[in-house]
Amino acid sequence: MANINNSFGKLSAGYLFPEIAKRTNSFLSENPGVELMKLGIGNTTEALPKTLVEAMKDKLDLLSSRDTYSGYGDEQGDTPLREALTKYYQNYGVELEATEFFISDGAKADAANIQQLFSCDSKVAFQDPAYPVYVDSNVVGGRTPGYDTKLQGYTNFEYLPCLESNSFIPQLPKTKVDLIYLCSPNNPTGSVMTHEDLKSFVDWANKNKAIIIFDSAYSEYVRDPSLPRSIYEVEGAKSCAIEINSFSKNAGFTGVRLGWTIVPKQLVCQDSEIGVLNSMWNRRQCTFFNGASNISQAGGISALTIQGLKECRALVDYYMDNAKIIKDGLESLNIVCFGGVNSPYIWAKTPNNLTSWQFFDFLLKKCHVVITPGSGFGPSGENYIRVSSYGHKENVIKAMESIKENFKNVN
Amino acid sequence: MANINNSFGKLSAGYLFPEIAKRTNSFLSENPGVELMKLGIGNTTEALPKTLVEAMKDKLDLLSSRDTYSGYGDEQGDTPLREALTKYYQNYGVELEATEFFISDGAKADAANIQQLFSCDSKVAFQDPAYPVYVDSNVVGGRTPGYDTKLQGYTNFEYLPCLESNSFIPQLPKTKVDLIYLCSPNNPTGSVMTHEDLKSFVDWANKNKAIIIFDSAYSEYVRDPSLPRSIYEVEGAKSCAIEINSFSKNAGFTGVRLGWTIVPKQLVCQDSEIGVLNSMWNRRQCTFFNGASNISQAGGISALTIQGLKECRALVDYYMDNAKIIKDGLESLNIVCFGGVNSPYIWAKTPNNLTSWQFFDFLLKKCHVVITPGSGFGPSGENYIRVSSYGHKENVIKAMESIKENFKNVN
Repeated sequence: MANINNSFGKLSAGYLFPEIAKRTNSFLSENPGVELMKLGIGNTTEALPKTLVEAMKDKLDLLSSRDTYSGYGDEQGDTPLREALTKYYQNYGVELEATEFFISDGAKADAANIQQLFSCDSKVAFQDPAYPVYVDSNVVGGRTPGYDTKLQGYTNFEYLPCLESNSFIPQLPKTKVDLIYLCSPNNPTGSVMTHEDLKSFVDWANKNKAIIIFDSAYSEYVRDPSLPRSIYEVEGAKSCAIEINSFSKNAGFTGVRLGWTIVPKQLVCQDSEIGVLNSMWNRRQCTFFNGASNISQAGGISALTIQGLKECRALVDYYMDNAKIIKDGLESLNIVCFGGVNSPYIWAKTPNNLTSWQFFDFLLKKCHVVITPGSGFGPSGENYIRVSSYGHKENVIKAMESIKENFKNVN
Repeated sequence: MANINNSFGKLSAGYLFPEIAKRTNSFLSENPGVELMKLGIGNTTEALPKTLVEAMKDKLDLLSSRDTYSGYGDEQGDTPLREALTKYYQNYGVELEATEFFISDGAKADAANIQQLFSCDSKVAFQDPAYPVYVDSNVVGGRTPGYDTKLQGYTNFEYLPCLESNSFIPQLPKTKVDLIYLCSPNNPTGSVMTHEDLKSFVDWANKNKAIIIFDSAYSEYVRDPSLPRSIYEVEGAKSCAIEINSFSKNAGFTGVRLGWTIVPKQLVCQDSEIGVLNSMWNRRQCTFFNGASNISQAGGISALTIQGLKECRALVDYYMDNAKIIKDGLESLNIVCFGGVNSPYIWAKTPNNLTSWQFFDFLLKKCHVVITPGSGFGPSGENYIRVSSYGHKENVIKAMESIKENFKNVN
């Protein structure tokens, strides 16, 4: 008599993006022929960098000959890619060993699976608002009795509110949590934590033997040299932080799939020796994963060459230029905006105290522009929307014109 | 004070394949210059089929232009691939809906993750010997108090011994288990379950509201038309079975990564309504996964075209021919062999009652041939070895000659 894992039943209403798709499709079926402009999901739109494509085609040529064909690679990833990543980190002054890197099929899977390393009764803190995967994977992991509609959050989770009053930078946990999820540059708020911000979390985590899960998927958008791109730029982070990153947002690999997670050997857990978490993640990947696609990995190695980095940087520049267009456009309508600098996301306050979904519906129905309602990222996201800079520039300009044109009706 | 998930600590000694690599590397470092012949890991060795390579290059061309670029695909997989799979199954008379297919980065991840859908206190039965991932993922899932060295197995798991006496076909569970893992054609024994064998499990599962996890990763090796390739060829399977399959062993995608899992909508669980498991796996994939590589998926679609199927069939023929060479060679030495027909694996009895690892060491050190010790697949695998037909034909022939040449010393 098989019974289901009833933690799944505790997940609150549909995952954010499918819900957006549902409302969008419903609008389209009622209004056939309308052309929507999408500034919603953080989905890249521009062509893959040339050098990376050539590297992947070369890999396909190697796979086409029995003399150069290869099958299963290491579950941890190809050594040349892990080594290229150690060099990439040296550019920020961060020294890591190749065996501290684990290549994966993307940051989402790692961000969701990493909680498996920790005991079910771990207490977890999350930035709020945040990428829904952190919370949802911990709900499935059995770390909450359930959703509390009054609290607008899950019982036993500590939410670290990121508000205008704290410049959207999370404050230290108030309770003795075991795991802390941070993301900088932040999705959805676009805020970036400084060295000092990170240092206070690292010190707190080391003192309390907590582990920080640091999502740096947008690190390539940091252009201000005074801001950290890796948590390991902060002293003491190697004993308390796991970092997750991806080729999605800088190399356009959202569909190609490639990411990495760093589990330093110095990482310490309350009840285990130094090095145990690195071994555990290694064992986890060897049991639950069979390596990232060798084609994607060839592309990843190429993305870390001088020419690859240059082309990826140009791609990021393109989206950052879009971000500026969006931010300038919204601000010209007196919409209060955050982020959009060192980040592809603009975090905009809804006008007239509209809820996030009300403003979503307005922008969808009146302006034919799809954005992401801030409340979908957590209770502190209410009254905000996230506008994504991922889109063809001409469409971004068109979307902003449509918003400007129709916005007078809401005021 | 973060604590680790101590289920990881219950995993018995290293995962099988890393242990083989360790012994092999240690031999090589003591005997530099020796050329080893590998018939161990089930790792494909022949070139990718031409048509599939062209399809993947074409996809890279599409990704190279902003007009045809695409980013994130559906977490469930591309619709054309899911639809092509429904047609592929129709060839065996199996009718499934596209939304019952979930595309993944390979069968291993799905086989390991599927247990997440079920409650922690589920009782689980496994074929013994079996692919280690089934057992290990359930150990991590918290379904056993630990390993019992006397039993040579995990407490609370039911092992279904596959022995010479039952032609390596598992018998029905003796206790009321909730989940049953089956694999046919079997890894490692090479045995294939008949319609009648599967029917008895399907009937038992429906009667006891148990769920069968059916791994059919080697289905393309079934050449006897009287043998089933999918569990859904058996009446009643849709209400009790999940099927997992892959492009690894027929299209040579071990490194490219692509697989699928079928969760029928009729599937029933004790405490849930019809359709719930399909929705739960959908939610699981949307939360923990971000879709398989779009390049690999383009290859998968191509593998299901008439030309692609033809080229993949030729690839399987090649390995099956190797299997015959191995089987004939071992039998000429009076080694008792099973499998190797409708399967890429030969399951050979060790001579002189040697343990699996003793025969492994003999073959490594004396013959310079690497195989897989049967005991690595579970207690009933002791005194057997698995010989894999994955290799260049000339190397397979050389390996068999070396075994024949050196085998007189063991007798």
